[in-house]
Amino acid sequence: MTYQRTIPVEFNHCDPAGIVFYPRYFEMTNSVVENFFAERVGRSYARITMQDGNGVPTVRIDANFRAPSRLGDRLVFTLRVLKVGGSSVALSIAARGEDEPEGSQRLQADLTLVWVTPEGRSAPWPDDMRAKLMVELDKEPAT
Amino acid sequence: MTYQRTIPVEFNHCDPAGIVFYPRYFEMTNSVVENFFAERVGRSYARITMQDGNGVPTVRIDANFRAPSRLGDRLVFTLRVLKVGGSSVALSIAARGEDEPEGSQRLQADLTLVWVTPEGRSAPWPDDMRAKLMVELDKEPAT
Amino acid sequence: MTYQRTIPVEFNHCDPAGIVFYPRYFEMTNSVVENFFAERVGRSYARITMQDGNGVPTVRIDANFRAPSRLGDRLVFTLRVLKVGGSSVALSIAARGEDEPEGSQRLQADLTLVWVTPEGRSAPWPDDMRAKLMVELDKEPAT
Amino acid sequence: MTYQRTIPVEFNHCDPAGIVFYPRYFEMTNSVVENFFAERVGRSYARITMQDGNGVPTVRIDANFRAPSRLGDRLVFTLRVLKVGGSSVALSIAARGEDEPEGSQRLQADLTLVWVTPEGRSAPWPDDMRAKLMVELDKEPAT
Repeated sequence: MTYQRTIPVEFNHCDPAGIVFYPRYFEMTNSVVENFFAERVGRSYARITMQDGNGVPTVRIDANFRAPSRLGDRLVFTLRVLKVGGSSVALSIAARGEDEPEGSQRLQADLTLVWVTPEGRSAPWPDDMRAKLMVELDKEPAT
Repeated sequence: MTYQRTIPVEFNHCDPAGIVFYPRYFEMTNSVVENFFAERVGRSYARITMQDGNGVPTVRIDANFRAPSRLGDRLVFTLRVLKVGGSSVALSIAARGEDEPEGSQRLQADLTLVWVTPEGRSAPWPDDMRAKLMVELDKEPAT
Repeated sequence: MTYQRTIPVEFNHCDPAGIVFYPRYFEMTNSVVENFFAERVGRSYARITMQDGNGVPTVRIDANFRAPSRLGDRLVFTLRVLKVGGSSVALSIAARGEDEPEGSQRLQADLTLVWVTPEGRSAPWPDDMRAKLMVELDKEPAT
Repeated sequence: MTYQRTIPVEFNHCDPAGIVFYPRYFEMTNSVVENFFAERVGRSYARITMQDGNGVPTVRIDANFRAPSRLGDRLVFTLRVLKVGGSSVALSIAARGEDEPEGSQRLQADLTLVWVTPEGRSAPWPDDMRAKLMVELDKEPAT
């Protein structure tokens, strides 16, 4: 299964060349992951961080920026769960322009996130989260 | 007439106290204005800035932050056009929590924007923009 | 007395017109206030917020953007304490280009900050902070 | 040769857990690269982008976040030039806390940047830039 979310490129995201500044792309990837956790994994970041004191920090991100995105573009982000570890999850996020064919990529990023306790130590996923992540696990061979 | 737009408070907007950091509120007010121009005034910021080389810089903003907003809140922004000048427009933007009664205010800001030429000088609004702004002009006494 | 701090305009601050995007100006004003508290008022934001659980939220900001700032400019920010209230402080922050005469203003903002408890309620300034703020209080008539 | 730059962790950079939010780390890496180009490669981003219309977009970044950074920390960034290609450059950036021993890493990122023309196409480095980049090229085996 995949999770999709569309984000419009607004003034806020663009640099003096009129294209998305890469730290803003990472604000977008974080937003995609945050909404994925709320909608598919059953826990909002508000609950995870503010209520329960846990965290899901990103410990690695490997991103390729293949084509620029411009002010006014609408980006379709697709998230896939590549691997569910004991206390980690590997995700792939790709973005294409809304008018571009599926599989086109402006941005492709592999991320690893870790479940951490209020003390900041990695810990096994709670059972309910692990079960939901396993449902999302992508069975397709990676492209 | 008023223009409304809902923005969810995401991780990206929040400070170490778990509440919206005020520069992020201004990213939101800019987004509200940007979408207002695209949807009601008939010109996207992509056209205004990238295609035509014009600009609509904010020259004044007077903002009151009346109550904090937290991660996970959904904010309803309401924009009203207070005054259409020769080359400027005065706007009022208020935000309330989605579950709060109309008229509640987390944030209230008065903004003045100016139409500028590619040389960066203020200039009269193009006729089509001026006509659209006049349609939006709020006839109610200010609250 | 006044407090000064120079901030270079970097790529991160600039919009598609190559000038400082106003939410980034507010990141700068927040940084100026944060460093003022650490250097002149004797408490870092790390201590205030993370260690003690207090806060100094900005409850009002009234900003005028008088002239644009461009990538590569160096901005000299000057902070003055206008009024020390029981649980609030009124500040004025102005910024000029490093090469411009004193008194020039790219940006001028009046801010009100409030001291809040860990429960988020306003409270009287701790004595040591109040004493330091009084030392900084500007006796000059406002310009 | 290496290039170093210290960046304090300010309120602006921190998330609700009080640690640096990863898109803000990338604002820092961009700032380090921007200052490296101005100080060591002889061209400011103001000249590159605003005056000449060129660009040096980041086309890949592979970042590992090994330990969190907190509000008030001071981060020492070290940049090394790993490889100078025809129209690209591979950089490594690591950050440690100012009080930590050399070689400690909060963050380590490998970046690839490309020189682009005003039309957005990759192009050979100008001779002066290439010569300066070659001076910076790290001859040490990678760690």
